Amino acid sequence: MDNRKMVDDITSMDEDFAKWYTDIVKKAELVGYTSIKGCLVIRPYGYAIWENMQRILDGMFKATGHENVCMPMFIPESLLNKEKDHVEGFAPEVAWVTHGGSEKLEERLCVRPTSETLFCEHYSNIIHSYRDLPKLYNQWVSVVRWEKTTRPFLRSREFLWQEGHTIHETAAQAVEETEKMLGVYAKFCEDALAMPVVKGKKTESDKFAGAVSTYAIEALMHDGKALQAGTSHYFGDGFARAFDITFSDRENKKSFPHQTSWGVSTRLIGGIIMTHGDDNGLALPPAVAPIQAVIIPIAAHKGGVIEKARELEQKLKASVRVALDESDNSPGWKFAQYEMKGVPVRIELGPRDIENGECVIVTRHNREKTVVKLDGIVQAVEQKLREVHDGLYKKALENRIKRTYDCKTTDEMIDVMRENGDGFIRAMWCGSEECEDAVKEKTGAGSRCIPFEQESISDKCVCCQRPAKTMVLWGKAY
Amino acid sequence: MDNRKMVDDITSMDEDFAKWYTDIVKKAELVGYTSIKGCLVIRPYGYAIWENMQRILDGMFKATGHENVCMPMFIPESLLNKEKDHVEGFAPEVAWVTHGGSEKLEERLCVRPTSETLFCEHYSNIIHSYRDLPKLYNQWVSVVRWEKTTRPFLRSREFLWQEGHTIHETAAQAVEETEKMLGVYAKFCEDALAMPVVKGKKTESDKFAGAVSTYAIEALMHDGKALQAGTSHYFGDGFARAFDITFSDRENKKSFPHQTSWGVSTRLIGGIIMTHGDDNGLALPPAVAPIQAVIIPIAAHKGGVIEKARELEQKLKASVRVALDESDNSPGWKFAQYEMKGVPVRIELGPRDIENGECVIVTRHNREKTVVKLDGIVQAVEQKLREVHDGLYKKALENRIKRTYDCKTTDEMIDVMRENGDGFIRAMWCGSEECEDAVKEKTGAGSRCIPFEQESISDKCVCCQRPAKTMVLWGKAY
Repeated sequence: MDNRKMVDDITSMDEDFAKWYTDIVKKAELVGYTSIKGCLVIRPYGYAIWENMQRILDGMFKATGHENVCMPMFIPESLLNKEKDHVEGFAPEVAWVTHGGSEKLEERLCVRPTSETLFCEHYSNIIHSYRDLPKLYNQWVSVVRWEKTTRPFLRSREFLWQEGHTIHETAAQAVEETEKMLGVYAKFCEDALAMPVVKGKKTESDKFAGAVSTYAIEALMHDGKALQAGTSHYFGDGFARAFDITFSDRENKKSFPHQTSWGVSTRLIGGIIMTHGDDNGLALPPAVAPIQAVIIPIAAHKGGVIEKARELEQKLKASVRVALDESDNSPGWKFAQYEMKGVPVRIELGPRDIENGECVIVTRHNREKTVVKLDGIVQAVEQKLREVHDGLYKKALENRIKRTYDCKTTDEMIDVMRENGDGFIRAMWCGSEECEDAVKEKTGAGSRCIPFEQESISDKCVCCQRPAKTMVLWGKAY
Repeated sequence: MDNRKMVDDITSMDEDFAKWYTDIVKKAELVGYTSIKGCLVIRPYGYAIWENMQRILDGMFKATGHENVCMPMFIPESLLNKEKDHVEGFAPEVAWVTHGGSEKLEERLCVRPTSETLFCEHYSNIIHSYRDLPKLYNQWVSVVRWEKTTRPFLRSREFLWQEGHTIHETAAQAVEETEKMLGVYAKFCEDALAMPVVKGKKTESDKFAGAVSTYAIEALMHDGKALQAGTSHYFGDGFARAFDITFSDRENKKSFPHQTSWGVSTRLIGGIIMTHGDDNGLALPPAVAPIQAVIIPIAAHKGGVIEKARELEQKLKASVRVALDESDNSPGWKFAQYEMKGVPVRIELGPRDIENGECVIVTRHNREKTVVKLDGIVQAVEQKLREVHDGLYKKALENRIKRTYDCKTTDEMIDVMRENGDGFIRAMWCGSEECEDAVKEKTGAGSRCIPFEQESISDKCVCCQRPAKTMVLWGKAY
């Protein structure tokens, strides 16, 4: 049985990674295209991944004291204009509503590219005293950014995300929140998505529009390019001053509160694809896989096979998202199909297995087969799902470690990336924007972040060779 | 303790029902206003009600075989224009996007007022054979309709909803789906919202734009006005023909599939307020109440009270959404506050109660007090929550029965409504649009629906006195 052949309309990833990616999102039925560029249909299989991500993240947000709210999708132009840096960052890429029905609106409204301004307007209405603080809010919505180049999940004109927005009495509390939520994101990526990430701070030039500082988690994809997987911003009191949000503090003085915001998006689905996928298709981390285990009956026409398969399905249902494929496609076609869909565990069950009181379990990421007693099937599948998670994480981490290079000069950076096909570069930086730009221009790799975990690669800046201040993680990015 | 006094900034419902309603949505912190008319912030307490509704409904949709998807929020003008009746119904009230960043778009995009056209475009891409049918889809999104008059939850320019969209091999299957989902809505309203509804069919003039037939559930509010609580539409193959969606049927002939759509929205929160609320504020059905039981310590400064209250909270947590208010507000203030917020059950716990191994439980809807042993507190609270649900339902049903009148002439209708403050009128109808319009003009009451459960009130049309065809439920509506 040549499974490879069954999915041979997926381009090989080494041949053309971009085409491999697009093939997967289409063939695995994650998205559908529409007549508007960059606006996609998220199909049931793709949306189910997002629902699983939502459920886990939402639980983590609530466990850390956050409440969900919902702001309108429209922002009046005058409101967007209130914070100078913010509007400069976003105005060039917003969609403008100018008419309601047949009437021209008095003021243009943009479709939210992000909702800081809306939260600020709301805060200014509801915050009066230190007793009203903090407010720890989150919302699950879609946002619109009118990008020129688009790519499913990675860069869409409309995308789904969550945006956390919090407001605090003191700067210290807001900074603590910013860091805490970056930690939540890192934990989520590692524990749920099996995706190792580097935590760090963005450079000044790479901050969110309006932020004092932006933190990010960065992941390395299979092709050696970096993906910014989540960001957390500390705003100081800049937005509060721009929107005149004040409160009576504990000394009964008028004071400006301090804010944060943080977000992850459906972009993470792109991250899963490019971290774990292979030439056979998707490989999904069990925590977010819509189907965690699929049962495939062998010689299903033979007496007792379907019945036993259904019995297995019932047994597993309580603790595993399980599916049984009773269709009349061949087992070989099904093997290839569910491998392509990235289902972590496949259970093969035929007449001989049943006779022996056994079945065969195959794990997606390494295609390892294990013969398992039907008696202990639930524990065995649960165990295998843990193994798949650990296996995916280990593979991704090894890939990142293997492809993280320490460099002392930009020439070294160029050589290393050419030889190895991109990757993460750790190199020192003097802190000047000129050097940051020059590195990008010479090597194609931008600063991804200033990792929290610093090491000294050298004393000198990778670019100007003057004294270095920090180690920066560089890379080409999605 | 005069609790009434504590919430005396809520207008009495008999004095001014509209103002009572607005007071509640503001004081109970369900919504916040923004600078755009009809676009509201749904605040944590309001959003938590919606989340509970979503969770229950989503479970019911999945149990009936539906999958969630997500369509884009934008519809190109040419796509909206494809189905004649549909565009006529919606074009006058859509918001138009004309610019992306600083560039004018080649084609205007409207922000979805509903997503039939987007689903149709997608169906035409993915449906080829009868084997691809049915598709049973749903999405949780917000939609925009540029209304002139707006009111929180009941009529907003942007509102949250779910829209189910399904496509079937045969007309019979699509009709069955339309009816099934109306049944799901009715069950949800009655079992989760304690809101009795009448199931029926809309008249021709009141159908959804593009539908062959529209079914609805109608509820009677406290003020005697009707609320359309949910709708389910059967489209026949009209959309399929307009969008050229075809499939090879079982005889291998090209055939048009049959479609449905169905939706409920945050409007249901308005329905809950106006069905169950009273002069003390909200009264929430337990299934969707963000807090089902609140513990209020009495003489909290006395030794052991807070400790015991926390112990109670821990005990209840596993099966009840419970809160403990440890703030230093007075018990009386807290009683009024949580009554206003509609919390179904209040638990009072003071030093003497603790001595006796007891506490006092007060149910919101009837303010009945019960002394309960602390030993059996979990079962007692669970029991009380069921009683609250049943009590709310009974009260609402009695109100509807009391205010449903049978009339034989429009004069009778006018008299009955004047005497009793609106209500539901059951009266016969000849089936002509002229009579339907004339009744509306003379009495102010429109046709709500043609109830599935028909009775014969008379042989003659309430308006023209010619032979009647069906019994219609009439009423003034939100």
